[in-house]
Amino acid sequence: MTRIAYLNGSFLPLEDTRISILDRGFLFADGIYEVTAVLDGRLVDTPRHMARLARSAREIGMRLRETTEQIETIERELIARNGLIEGLVYLQATRGTDADRDFLSAADLEPTLVMFTQAKALIDAPAARTGISVATVPDIRWGRRDIKSVMLLAQVLAKQEAVRAGAQDAWLVADGMVTEGASSTAWILTQGGTLVTRSKSHVTLPGCTGDALAALVGELGLTIDFRPFSVEEALAAKEAFNSAAGSLILPVVAIDGQPIGDGAPGPVTTRLRERYIAHARA
Amino acid sequence: MTRIAYLNGSFLPLEDTRISILDRGFLFADGIYEVTAVLDGRLVDTPRHMARLARSAREIGMRLRETTEQIETIERELIARNGLIEGLVYLQATRGTDADRDFLSAADLEPTLVMFTQAKALIDAPAARTGISVATVPDIRWGRRDIKSVMLLAQVLAKQEAVRAGAQDAWLVADGMVTEGASSTAWILTQGGTLVTRSKSHVTLPGCTGDALAALVGELGLTIDFRPFSVEEALAAKEAFNSAAGSLILPVVAIDGQPIGDGAPGPVTTRLRERYIAHARA
Repeated sequence: MTRIAYLNGSFLPLEDTRISILDRGFLFADGIYEVTAVLDGRLVDTPRHMARLARSAREIGMRLRETTEQIETIERELIARNGLIEGLVYLQATRGTDADRDFLSAADLEPTLVMFTQAKALIDAPAARTGISVATVPDIRWGRRDIKSVMLLAQVLAKQEAVRAGAQDAWLVADGMVTEGASSTAWILTQGGTLVTRSKSHVTLPGCTGDALAALVGELGLTIDFRPFSVEEALAAKEAFNSAAGSLILPVVAIDGQPIGDGAPGPVTTRLRERYIAHARA
Repeated sequence: MTRIAYLNGSFLPLEDTRISILDRGFLFADGIYEVTAVLDGRLVDTPRHMARLARSAREIGMRLRETTEQIETIERELIARNGLIEGLVYLQATRGTDADRDFLSAADLEPTLVMFTQAKALIDAPAARTGISVATVPDIRWGRRDIKSVMLLAQVLAKQEAVRAGAQDAWLVADGMVTEGASSTAWILTQGGTLVTRSKSHVTLPGCTGDALAALVGELGLTIDFRPFSVEEALAAKEAFNSAAGSLILPVVAIDGQPIGDGAPGPVTTRLRERYIAHARA
């Protein structure tokens, strides 16, 4: 089946979906993105993703080509056209295509909007059963990590470094403290049974999946301490996990080669994953 | 006349030069670039630009689609096909186009190489006659500014902020010290007559035009102090200027609204510009 993508008002076969080399997303990383999970053919946590998209656009002074309501409609159309049951919808918005390369764009530039789907097993995912190992990597990203921009080279390099170190993903570390995963929010469960994750600032991306999860943990009798935690504290944790639209809640069973807890997905992480999935499917 | 661009082995009209939305340059800013000046139909400081390109590729573990010798040949071909006498050649290399979006690319991915020309008056440039004003803006870029990557959103935002402040360009400032211009190397001439610019580190991009200039200043009886300088020191300077392939040597006549020297291009900057242009045309 040919995958259908969306570009500026048109639905096209993915392989024919091309943008000008003068698009500011390509030349300047002058763009933002969102990844939304799809379960049972339906979008998950869409209001959170649309709110974050609108915020990212606002923060870089960029207009969106469509309203978030229209974007949501296009996402649904893409899910239908691709017969997507489980996976992701990716969307990228850029400031547009200039007549010529210039750091300063024309004020009336028509923004670019690109979307496509990816089929992916999110619920019956092997990594969720086994958990993943992460390697800590220096966080060298820019000062506005709260904007979900396509300036992702540091994350790409961090993941490459983690794989070279024998791990499956990276946790980013600045001044000895974990900021977040290379493409996820990082969480630990302390020996005392408290969840710990960073509070919102310019240092981390506000995670939509993490925010949705945070709203659910009270039901499970858990509390969250929103604060930085060190690599040492993470190594001493009872459990650890990532939250992200692309993997939901994913157990982290080793950090820098050292097992966390007994080196297998912990019971609290497993319950949180089940609870999040129930919310996502509701 | 239709502008001709280059993409992965083909010469095409610029408006038909399109890349897949799965190109890693578009999705992850996983790419590097160079801008080379063209004077009298000939490339300027090419060995320096090609060495920097090769270094940028090495630093992010990216293969180039063509050797730097082949790239130089394509640049010459583009200059000829576009009848370019004065202006720029832009080149961008990305890690390539994945079969699907994934932070970790396939190891054998075929890299992307894009090039195009821009006609621009570099020698008889109005800004060079009058000088430009700059505004200082916080430097929020990532930790590997020595890599000439397309992760340029911070620079885009800095230039927007400078324009909003009534200036024409931005100087980036971290911890009170000027790192560099938003797309140039920043220089001052102290009241004592010494040139000052940053030494090489991960904090700034090694400027090809600046390096070429540095090799010439001895002839003019000048010496360079390679060290950080503060905004206060810049405001108290005798002269200030930028060096960049896109503008050669450009007088900076005001910083944050305060005139530098007598607020007009200074005699040393003017001599340096003339000397650099003579070198570039040689």
